[in-house]
Parts: sequence; structure tokens; C-alpha cells
Amino acid sequence: MTTLNVEVRLDYDAVEPTALLLQIEAAETEGQRMVSNELSAPGTDEMRRVPAEDGIGERLWLHCEDAFRCTYRARIEVTRDVPPLEGLAETPLHALPGEAVHYLLPSRFCPSGRFEAFVEDRFGALSGGAKIAAMRDWVEASFSYVPGASNADTDAVDTFLSRRGICRDYAHVLVSLARAATIPARMVAVYSAAVTPPDFHAVAEVYLGGAWHMVDPTGMSDPAELAVIGVGRDATDIAFLTSFAPIALKYQSVAVSRG
Amino acid sequence: MTTLNVEVRLDYDAVEPTALLLQIEAAETEGQRMVSNELSAPGTDEMRRVPAEDGIGERLWLHCEDAFRCTYRARIEVTRDVPPLEGLAETPLHALPGEAVHYLLPSRFCPSGRFEAFVEDRFGALSGGAKIAAMRDWVEASFSYVPGASNADTDAVDTFLSRRGICRDYAHVLVSLARAATIPARMVAVYSAAVTPPDFHAVAEVYLGGAWHMVDPTGMSDPAELAVIGVGRDATDIAFLTSFAPIALKYQSVAVSRG
Amino acid sequence: MTTLNVEVRLDYDAVEPTALLLQIEAAETEGQRMVSNELSAPGTDEMRRVPAEDGIGERLWLHCEDAFRCTYRARIEVTRDVPPLEGLAETPLHALPGEAVHYLLPSRFCPSGRFEAFVEDRFGALSGGAKIAAMRDWVEASFSYVPGASNADTDAVDTFLSRRGICRDYAHVLVSLARAATIPARMVAVYSAAVTPPDFHAVAEVYLGGAWHMVDPTGMSDPAELAVIGVGRDATDIAFLTSFAPIALKYQSVAVSRG
Amino acid sequence: MTTLNVEVRLDYDAVEPTALLLQIEAAETEGQRMVSNELSAPGTDEMRRVPAEDGIGERLWLHCEDAFRCTYRARIEVTRDVPPLEGLAETPLHALPGEAVHYLLPSRFCPSGRFEAFVEDRFGALSGGAKIAAMRDWVEASFSYVPGASNADTDAVDTFLSRRGICRDYAHVLVSLARAATIPARMVAVYSAAVTPPDFHAVAEVYLGGAWHMVDPTGMSDPAELAVIGVGRDATDIAFLTSFAPIALKYQSVAVSRG
Repeated sequence: MTTLNVEVRLDYDAVEPTALLLQIEAAETEGQRMVSNELSAPGTDEMRRVPAEDGIGERLWLHCEDAFRCTYRARIEVTRDVPPLEGLAETPLHALPGEAVHYLLPSRFCPSGRFEAFVEDRFGALSGGAKIAAMRDWVEASFSYVPGASNADTDAVDTFLSRRGICRDYAHVLVSLARAATIPARMVAVYSAAVTPPDFHAVAEVYLGGAWHMVDPTGMSDPAELAVIGVGRDATDIAFLTSFAPIALKYQSVAVSRG
Repeated sequence: MTTLNVEVRLDYDAVEPTALLLQIEAAETEGQRMVSNELSAPGTDEMRRVPAEDGIGERLWLHCEDAFRCTYRARIEVTRDVPPLEGLAETPLHALPGEAVHYLLPSRFCPSGRFEAFVEDRFGALSGGAKIAAMRDWVEASFSYVPGASNADTDAVDTFLSRRGICRDYAHVLVSLARAATIPARMVAVYSAAVTPPDFHAVAEVYLGGAWHMVDPTGMSDPAELAVIGVGRDATDIAFLTSFAPIALKYQSVAVSRG
Repeated sequence: MTTLNVEVRLDYDAVEPTALLLQIEAAETEGQRMVSNELSAPGTDEMRRVPAEDGIGERLWLHCEDAFRCTYRARIEVTRDVPPLEGLAETPLHALPGEAVHYLLPSRFCPSGRFEAFVEDRFGALSGGAKIAAMRDWVEASFSYVPGASNADTDAVDTFLSRRGICRDYAHVLVSLARAATIPARMVAVYSAAVTPPDFHAVAEVYLGGAWHMVDPTGMSDPAELAVIGVGRDATDIAFLTSFAPIALKYQSVAVSRG
Repeated sequence: MTTLNVEVRLDYDAVEPTALLLQIEAAETEGQRMVSNELSAPGTDEMRRVPAEDGIGERLWLHCEDAFRCTYRARIEVTRDVPPLEGLAETPLHALPGEAVHYLLPSRFCPSGRFEAFVEDRFGALSGGAKIAAMRDWVEASFSYVPGASNADTDAVDTFLSRRGICRDYAHVLVSLARAATIPARMVAVYSAAVTPPDFHAVAEVYLGGAWHMVDPTGMSDPAELAVIGVGRDATDIAFLTSFAPIALKYQSVAVSRG
């Protein structure tokens, strides 16, 4: 078991009143337990909570007049059991739960159909968890972690070619390769104490052996020590903050520590 | 009330055994009632049914050895109440049901963020149902319905520029314009007796006044007379047949009549 | 006649020795006369000059060890005769000079084929110079000049949708619209005293009435008062500085004054 | 020396009178000699010949009323000297002829900048002709020649991912890889007796050791036995027929034999 202490501070200015959609709280979900969870956004009206994608975590609607300042503090016990990836078998397609089906399909940042030839050439001899492990190792060995090398429009094809990016880019590539091999894969927003520099983190998650399993293609974090915030098809679905009018970042920090 | 009689025939050859995902049955959903519903696929093993996107309709996993032949016959009473679009108000964002939130976001074929400038310029003075009606009328007036002008990779930007396409292309554009105006919008696969030439049909659906409302930007069909098959973010999610190995079309027909 | 005084300063650091391709000198070409022209790049070896695209202007190969500092000063008399655009007829295609032919075709940043439907809808009733003038006026009226809204990968479709950009983006759109109307169009790098903030400037040039004619869709400059540096298919061909290894900008200024 | 006999037949219908740009005649250029050359297009007015890209070959403007039928027969002696690729050194950039410079840059179908990481990873240890030979061998070994797998919009990134295509796609990839390694590369339209099925053929050409050298990444043809039609940045520039209004193919054949 790992206990994570999370502290996030966000400080933005808005030029006009706007709705904000916030998703930064660790989720009440399998494999983790909230010891404490405290979100404070003075001067911002909390409008309503709604379940996030696949019912994992919540999104919070806020109304921001001219500034958004928010502090989030949580203590989370992670008790996730992480079996060795290599031993996991592919789940027959017809045995997939209904909500996993669309994770076989291409999405905005993960145009998985375009990777089928590469996946067949490079990983065609493998299957199940061994295939995913080989994909993860290939991504980690082939790509360089370079903050600033990508932007909010970068998709998995861009990253596959440029071989540079950050956690979301690595995860987009692994998600795309997995789907190209007909293995359901989704993105997960997480907190990790192992990320340098400290920031929101994102990993891939694949459906094998009848369950979802996180995989970090950057090699930075251990899935046994991650606190899940939310899931989705790709970065589109797991944004920590979505604004419906322009806002300007003034300050942002994410600190995660063990113990 | 309208009663629709549907008959679909599909005939495909497979070069190797493959899983198929079929979604052609009209859904048991609000506004329509199945009088009869009969799907027959001799020689193909039916593996399992799972709920489709948003729990509307079902997807059916099939195992196909070398050929897939399927007949679907249904009789559906459509009792949908269709209020005038112009009278519908925008639902405040924070009042949206959780499952509508991702229909505000860009998706693979509907990169809605790219249309914000155009939507603001052209439709910025309108709101709610009047805005959607103006978008629908603009699409219908500006575009030409040309089978063969688009393909499975065509997205809303392609269609916005080429101004030619089929129902899915029209719907992708309207869905993109609506989302660019911060109005939730999704794709709906439907049966319609008014489509020429007869085929599977697709329309847009927007969330206004606390409920989903179908809109057909091709102008061919009346939402009061449509039988819903399924919904999703864009064409990715509502494919009537997805094969996980190459298959070859031999014959396909869709017939829909009233009465 | 207008006399322009140009002063450019460039200051870059290189992390490793690299070849540089520089194109900042005003061209010895029709409609302008060099009164003086002085390029100085202390510490950088000048390797060779080669004619630039269409024989207009020159590119200069330099070898840079670790830093590139360059000053360019010129005085140019512009005697260009600029007939009213509206009076210019389209040149029959078969009467085009051979070197104008590829300016009818799509290029990297000007995928003109994608604009044919829009051009036909919006400008189909016009021809020749009147058509180009209408396109220029539409671009100027519809787009906002926003430094930072685009980057080196932005193409004419991106700008057509976002409606924001800088001179190169405006020119890419006008070049694309012209080519979509089967009127040869190219990009021109120029010096202008009318650009705010002062910078390298780019305009479109169309082939009408048997000659090339510059058109500035930003509305900032008058073609009669521009000093041409070079031409090409799009921004790819008229870069003022191309490095074959990473270099870092330290300082850059462009000053142009009349008299 | 090889002698090639070429016979081409084209038969198209036009729905309205249109200008056509035809480039199917073998070029009067170094390494090949026209023994005979006869182009006949009864019922189509020949308007004018202009030099094609880089002055290699000619483009022919035609006026077509309602149908275009054309026969081309030529006999060409190919005397091209083809040195072993592996022995060719890179030409220093500053020693490139001016007209080779833009062949270092990305173009519409050859977005070479996107391949730099892959080229450095895979071929970074090699240089000059040995590097090009390794790229050619990699393309030939990795890709499958599949007519119909690509279309007129397919670029080198598409093909790099799908690993399937025809001669133009293979050439686009090799041209892109070469440019990503700062070696000038262009497309060449050629006639070859070795192409199956018989058709117009396209290969890459790289500038090494002070001259252009053709390379066929499909492995089908020997550069010593090719008759050059024309050159350009990519498929955009070497189309055998460009129509400025819709035309419909009725029949087309290309036959090339030795002796």
C-alpha cells in the first residue's frame, strides 16, 4: 500500500465571466481510498458535480467571474493490485463489457487505424500482456521526454514521427498501438509521486484478462502507486480544466509525495 | 404517430474468420416502440449483446467464419414528440446531465474547436434552438448531397470546404457547429422512409431545453418520423458493421416504408 | 517613386556548427533599383550565392560556427507601376509563361484544391482582377491580424477556419483562393514601411494581364511601395533564414522607413 | 545502352470545354536520345508548349471540347551512366546549384521535416549514397506494392504508416527521408519496361557527388533503363494530365518494351 499526499494550486484570470469544468479530484474508485479530500475555490461559485467518463471520478461545474483560484489537498491510500503485465491474456472481444467497446475505436488524438501496419510488422508475433509490454518498452526506448515539444493539438501520429513529447503524448501513442492490435485502451489522468518535473500525469490503461490495467510508457511511474483522477478516450476527455471563454494562467503547481 | 417497416439485407465475404460488431436494430428507447424485431444471420454465431453508447440500443458481437449474411426486419411505432426547434432554450452548462458533457468536446470527425471563429461570425447573434435552426438551414442551403464525394476518412473540415457529402458528412458539420457554440451535439443512426436513395441514415442531435432533439441538416427527413438505432460522438461510434479483419461487400440493401 | 531605407539585425546562437541559408537582401528585379546594399555578418563565413526561386533575388549560403550576427542595410528606389487590379484580365492558361504553370497547383501551405467549392460559391460570378480584388477585400474584412495566433505549421485551411493570423497566413489564404480560381499565384517576401509592428512582410502575387501583380490582403501596404526580396510557392520558399541545425534567436529587428 | 519503345493511349470525356495540361513525352535530356517521338490528339487543339520544371521536358496546353483522345509513340535510346549509389559523396550544401536548393525543403506530399527523428534514429550513422541506398532498401523491404491502397491525396506520412502504396507513394517516402537527411531529392516521372502492371512510373532522384541520380525504391526498375519524362517536388509537379474541369477516364494504357 502507498499513501499519496496531493496538493494542487491553480490561479487563472478570466477576461469575462465563464463556466469552468474542473476535474482534479482523485476518484472514489477501485484500488484507492480517499483518506481526506478538500477542494477550495474562494470567490468561485460551485454549480454542480456530475459523474465523469465511465462513472470514474467527477467533473465539477464552476462559475468564474473574473478570476479562478483553487487549492486542492488530498490524502489517498492506493491499494491497487498490479499483476505482471506479461501474464495477462487478451479478453475475447465478445466478452468485453459494453463500455469497453468504444475503446477499441480510433479517437481524436489516437487515430489507431493508421498504426495497424506498424503494429502488425513490429508486434504481430506477440499477444495480450506481452504485446502491450513490448509496445510500452518500445515507446519508452524510442521516445524522448521533452516538455514543450508538443502542444494541445499534437496527436499520436505527430508524436510517433517526432519521437518527442510529454506524458500525454506517450500515452496517446501506446493507446493507439494497443487499439491497432484490437486491445481496448483508454487514457487515465493520475497523480504520481514519481513524475519529474511534478505535474498532472497521464498514463494508458488496457483491458486484459477481464480488467483494466494501467501502463506508464514514460517509465516514470509504477501503476501500483498511482491515484486515478479520471479516464477517457484520450486527452480530450481528461482535461483537468476546461474553460468556455479565454482564461490566462497565472500560476499552477502540482505536488505529490509519498507517506 | 408513424409506423415504419424496415428491411435490411447484408451480404459480405470474409477472407479469414473474424469478429464482427453489428448495430442495425432499432433501439428500445423513448419515442419509439418495437412492434416486431427480427434479426437473422444464418451461419454466423451470435456471441453476445452489449449496450451501445449512452445505453441507447445494443451492439451485437458475431463470429463470422467465411461469410456474413444477415436479414433484419422490424416494425416500429414512432410516437416522438417534436417541439419546434426555434422555441428551445439553451440548457445552462451546469445543468447538463453528466453523460452530455463530452458532447461539448471535439471528436475525431467533429473537430469543433476549429469552427469557433466561423460560428461566432455567422451565428453569434443567435442562441438556443434558433441558432441550431439557422445552422441547419445554412448547411442544407450551402451543401450538395453527392454520394461518393466523401469517404470513411472525411471529417467535418473536409466537408465544410468541399461542400459536398452524404448524410454523415452533413451531420458531422452540424454537430461541429453546435459544439463550437457550446451546445452539446451527438450523431444518431436512424431509419427513415424519406431518404433517397434508401440507405442507413444519420442525423445530428442537440441538447436543448433539458432534452435531446434530432435535427436533419440534409432536409430529407422529419425527426418525428425517425427510428433511432444508436447514438455517439460521430460516425466512429454508430457504424452499423465493424469488422476486425478485412471483409468484402457483396450486397447490401435498406428498405424503409411507412404504414 | 518611393525610396525605402532598410535595416535588419539578426542575432542567433548555434549549438553546433551549421550551414545557414539566408535570403534577406532586396532583389535586383523589375520595378526597383538598389541605391546601396550592404550585408555584414562578422565571424560567419560567406560560402556562396545562388539565384533564388524564379531567378528573383539570391540565397546566400553561410557557415556558422557558434553564433550568427548579421546586419543588413539597403536603400532601394521603388519605381513599380501598379495598375488598378480591377482592370486586369485573366491571362489564357496556354499563354502563361512556363515558369508560372506550377503556381496554378496546390503547395504545402496552400492546398488550393480544397477551396474550389468556396471560391465558386463566393466569387464565381467575377473574373480576373475584379475577382482577386473581391478575394483580397473578403480576406481583409474577415480575418484579424493577431501575432502569435499561428505558427510555422499553420496552413491556409487552418487560417481560413481560425480567421486569425499574420501576413504570411493572409497571403497563404489569398494565394490559395486565387489558385482555386485557376489564377496563378505566388508568395512574395517584401520590405514595407507600412507594416506594424515592423517586421519582414509577405504578400501574394497574381499573374493577370500578362504580368505579375502584388496584392496585400492585410491591407497594410501599397504594392507600389514594396521592395521585393524573393518569391516562391508559399512560406516554404521565402524563409529569410533556414538553419540545418537548431539555432536560438537572441535578437531580431527589421526597420523600414521612407525617404 | 537500352532502347525503349513507348506507346500510350488516353481516352477521356469532358462534360464542358476545358484546358488540359499534358506531360507524357519523354524529355530531350541528358542520358537519353529521342529516336522518334510522335504525339497525336485528333479533335483536340494543341495550344502551346512550355518548358516543364527545371527545364526538363515540356508541358503541352490543349483545348478539349468534349473528348480527349491521344496516342503517344516514341522510341528512346537510354545511354545513362549509372554509378554505384554507395560510392557517391554528399555535395556540400553551399556547392549545390541554385535550382537544387528547394529540393531540400518540405513539399505538399513530402513533409520531410516530420521524418527527421526517424531518419536520425535509423540512418544517422550513414552518409551520402550509402545512406540513400539504406533508405531505398528499407522502403523496399518494409512496404507492399498495392494498387488501390492510396489515392491522389495520400502523402508520405500516410504511406509511412500504412506501408502500402504504388510507385508515387514509395517515391514520396524516399524523397522525404532524403530531404530529412539534408540531401536534395525530387520526383521523376519515367517510362520503364520493368513495371508490372505496365503504367506511368515514378522514382526518386537525389543530388549526390555533384549530379542527380535516380533511385527506384520499389526495386522494379534499373535507373540505367529509364526514360525521363519530367521532374518536380512531388507528384503535384509531374502529373501526366491535369484538367481544369472534370473529365472522366474511359480508357488508358501504357506499354513499354525494350529493343
